Amino acid sequence: MPYPEEAEGFQVDSPETHTNFNKRFFKLKPFGDYDVDIKIEACGVCGSDLHTISGGWGAQKFPLCVGHEIIGRAIRVGPKVTLIQEGQRVGVGAQSYSCGECKQCKNDNETYCPVLMMDTYGSEWPQTGIVSQGGYSSHVRTHEHWVFPIPEQLETNLVAPMLCAGLTAYSPLVRNGAGPGKKVGIVGLGGIGHFGIMFAKALGAETWLFPGLAPRRWMHESWERMDTLLRRRKGFDLAKYLSLMDVHGRWISVGLPEEEGQVIKAQNLIANGVLIGASHLGSRREMLEMLKLAADKGLRGWVEELQIGEEGLKEAMVRMKKGDVHYRFTMTGYDKVFG
Amino acid sequence: MPYPEEAEGFQVDSPETHTNFNKRFFKLKPFGDYDVDIKIEACGVCGSDLHTISGGWGAQKFPLCVGHEIIGRAIRVGPKVTLIQEGQRVGVGAQSYSCGECKQCKNDNETYCPVLMMDTYGSEWPQTGIVSQGGYSSHVRTHEHWVFPIPEQLETNLVAPMLCAGLTAYSPLVRNGAGPGKKVGIVGLGGIGHFGIMFAKALGAETWLFPGLAPRRWMHESWERMDTLLRRRKGFDLAKYLSLMDVHGRWISVGLPEEEGQVIKAQNLIANGVLIGASHLGSRREMLEMLKLAADKGLRGWVEELQIGEEGLKEAMVRMKKGDVHYRFTMTGYDKVFG
Repeated sequence: MPYPEEAEGFQVDSPETHTNFNKRFFKLKPFGDYDVDIKIEACGVCGSDLHTISGGWGAQKFPLCVGHEIIGRAIRVGPKVTLIQEGQRVGVGAQSYSCGECKQCKNDNETYCPVLMMDTYGSEWPQTGIVSQGGYSSHVRTHEHWVFPIPEQLETNLVAPMLCAGLTAYSPLVRNGAGPGKKVGIVGLGGIGHFGIMFAKALGAETWLFPGLAPRRWMHESWERMDTLLRRRKGFDLAKYLSLMDVHGRWISVGLPEEEGQVIKAQNLIANGVLIGASHLGSRREMLEMLKLAADKGLRGWVEELQIGEEGLKEAMVRMKKGDVHYRFTMTGYDKVFG
Repeated sequence: MPYPEEAEGFQVDSPETHTNFNKRFFKLKPFGDYDVDIKIEACGVCGSDLHTISGGWGAQKFPLCVGHEIIGRAIRVGPKVTLIQEGQRVGVGAQSYSCGECKQCKNDNETYCPVLMMDTYGSEWPQTGIVSQGGYSSHVRTHEHWVFPIPEQLETNLVAPMLCAGLTAYSPLVRNGAGPGKKVGIVGLGGIGHFGIMFAKALGAETWLFPGLAPRRWMHESWERMDTLLRRRKGFDLAKYLSLMDVHGRWISVGLPEEEGQVIKAQNLIANGVLIGASHLGSRREMLEMLKLAADKGLRGWVEELQIGEEGLKEAMVRMKKGDVHYRFTMTGYDKVFG
């Protein structure tokens, strides 16, 4: 069957059984004029996968196949597709659709589209009843805007995590001015953090790494010096980090921890007029820029490869939950499983 | 005595007796080469006065004379003063000194100086034991950097509140890009808010007023539209306001409410990448710009005048606590009290 109407992948059935992956067939959305069918070759393992299937982000549409750091081959393109060519190696990240018409979509803010936001997995395609399924599977079908050609210098298994973790670090860096003459701090060296370090440095910023809980000495040395801080970790003293920032510096939270939130007082912000924000993925334009930067500078994820399958996915989730990953897993060996 | 070494003013002795103002003499700081002595003619009543003397902001150095929206006449200038001339009508706001040497002081961020920050009242001058005293008094002695010539078009009693409330609104507006093509929301129509409305409009921004608790209908109409929101009020649903903001809009808190802080989740920020910040007063440059804008456009505070004295100050504090002020008090009639 050259053009699949179904994909085969590994689904989870409930939060209680979230380390049990079940190999099944499921329907793809109807093929549209702008769609690209992709035969998957690798997929990075993102914290979002675990937050989603373990119930940490609330109710989900089970059964669900997660995975949204997808690299594969475009095997079919719709009649109106202009951005992707059949046979091209391509990637898909965490978002797979937005309205395309609103102010945000027309201004490189499609990840903030207020009209329609489709995640690569777990979102229901309007009027179909079909829930999007992710990249621990044989194929995805994705609108061309959300499909990205992969520069040939980048190795499939090492570039995969850039499709979500990489972009999640890259977008807020460029949107907040990381570059020569700027000081950037990254809090926590994980999947996103290790890309944050790489990209901030590649963009020319003086780049500092802060562990989850910064030693007092460091904080003192770098007082008043940070222009931008990215953080992912939860459970630390925000006010202490804010005191590291330069006047009107930006503290940008990336990713969505499973937490109750943090108490913020105007008093914590007023001493240096710091701004606190959060960032959601990045635009198509930023994705292409990031991939070019990575290709030009020889950047790649620090990846441990795991064989896709019931065992490999279980290992990924169990070890990720313990923080036993340096710094990203990529599921590989798709040809062995999906033939 | 042409050059006072003492001033006479109305002091409060404790939070428990904060509506009892006691007329007394107190020492001024030693006269420095850059200092200006000012004979006070009027002083606006700021929420900070009440927060300070009632203990809402924690322990203070009593006895204390508050008031930091000062207009008066320069009656003596130090030998190195170049910015102010003797006889000139001038103003003093909430801050009266910073180090003048650091990166922030040299970049129009003197209100964020990390080295030395002297408030107009309640700060101890280094190595003197003298605590700065505010404008419910006959005179202040202030470094020229913190003394501002008042354009002749602006009436003393109406411009006084601009020295703190006005600048507190103006600085974050200009720092966050308020101008033509931008939408600005002001939450709460109080002392700062009414200047916020005035200045945002004068700067050319589309300006919206939001009462402390915005009706649902308004929120829906204006969804996704605000570029900047200034707020002063406490006790409202922050997440609802954040949903009003455009992508990467700024929610800027002005003033320091007596509150425990607000819980902020990354989830509240990520839908539109909004930034939350706080602003502290404004720079000398911004003060001069604001006064020029007010003079050019005929802007003035909406002021109720009260006679300076034990009774008038008590009335001001009691009514301000009840919110019974539209929109600012100015204490006047200094010549009747201080001769």
